[in-house]
Amino acid sequence: MPKVVDHEERRRHIADAVFTVVGQRGLAAAGLRDVAAEAGVSMGSVQHYFSTKEDMLLFAMDHLTTRVVARIQAELQAAAPSTYRQFLTAAMRALLPLDRAGRDESAVNIAFFAAAGGNNRFRANLLAGYQKILANGTDRMRSAAAAGYLADGVDPERDGLALFALTQGLVGPLLLGAVTESQAMAVLDHQILRLFT
Amino acid sequence: MPKVVDHEERRRHIADAVFTVVGQRGLAAAGLRDVAAEAGVSMGSVQHYFSTKEDMLLFAMDHLTTRVVARIQAELQAAAPSTYRQFLTAAMRALLPLDRAGRDESAVNIAFFAAAGGNNRFRANLLAGYQKILANGTDRMRSAAAAGYLADGVDPERDGLALFALTQGLVGPLLLGAVTESQAMAVLDHQILRLFT
Repeated sequence: MPKVVDHEERRRHIADAVFTVVGQRGLAAAGLRDVAAEAGVSMGSVQHYFSTKEDMLLFAMDHLTTRVVARIQAELQAAAPSTYRQFLTAAMRALLPLDRAGRDESAVNIAFFAAAGGNNRFRANLLAGYQKILANGTDRMRSAAAAGYLADGVDPERDGLALFALTQGLVGPLLLGAVTESQAMAVLDHQILRLFT
Repeated sequence: MPKVVDHEERRRHIADAVFTVVGQRGLAAAGLRDVAAEAGVSMGSVQHYFSTKEDMLLFAMDHLTTRVVARIQAELQAAAPSTYRQFLTAAMRALLPLDRAGRDESAVNIAFFAAAGGNNRFRANLLAGYQKILANGTDRMRSAAAAGYLADGVDPERDGLALFALTQGLVGPLLLGAVTESQAMAVLDHQILRLFT
């Protein structure tokens, strides 16, 4: 029987290689050839899945969301939160660059952002990603509010955006080593604490 | 009498041209030639002040701090704050990309960040900038605490970092148009309101 090739899996494997190359050497280094070398596949194989560097990078951007969601789920499994507050803390923690994978994802996100000024497809893709994450966050805050978990005066939309922005704003200082993990988590814990009754 | 050339002024003029080029076309486009064209000076003039592209960009990074401080001062002059809270709101507002100059500065900052992974001088420069801004913010929070302006339980270090991170985290969504100026300001106002008695 012929071996069945899982094309989606192959594309994800190549996208992971994009993350490693961009995370370590920047977006300019992420040509089809370098990504093929990192993925351990032929140049032709990368070209089979992506006709241009831009297509490859756009797929990697979509894959970023998949990876982040998977890391949030892994973080939740490990933390086994028993309260809504613990759940939110674990989920927000997973958005911070606190390990190799998280640092690569943040570096990739920043690289796409830097490139988005001159590339409308990148820009549209990033905007769609932000809108999705913000809508998800606001929905979860609304559910928490409806269940009576939130403190008086908490506005799901405003405070959901604040929590997301706070997490995003900690990424740069963490990547540079301007703040430590425990400083970042103290900020996040305190912000989340204020949201709950 | 020979015309006295203000060398520092010339260097700043070139650095402003770097901001425009990077803000509109990205860091890769900011070669000595393109910056010279934008500044309306000769290529030799740029080379007289900066021997390499990297030196020019490092000077522009330092100039970023000068520009941001000047914008904060202009914002404070325009807002004429009469309370510490209004002062803090106006200063934080000046860090957001709400006009052409602010958008260029944010784009330049993101471009340097994206390049810092592969450039230790950029990285060291960014780190020094963050540490300076964070130390300033914490100092101001400590002064406000000493003067009795802050609410019970506010920690100058933690809440200063939170406010800075929140502002930084609003930059990306604002640049993309994922949030509006009034949404961003509502988040910032609410965060600042909680800090005061």
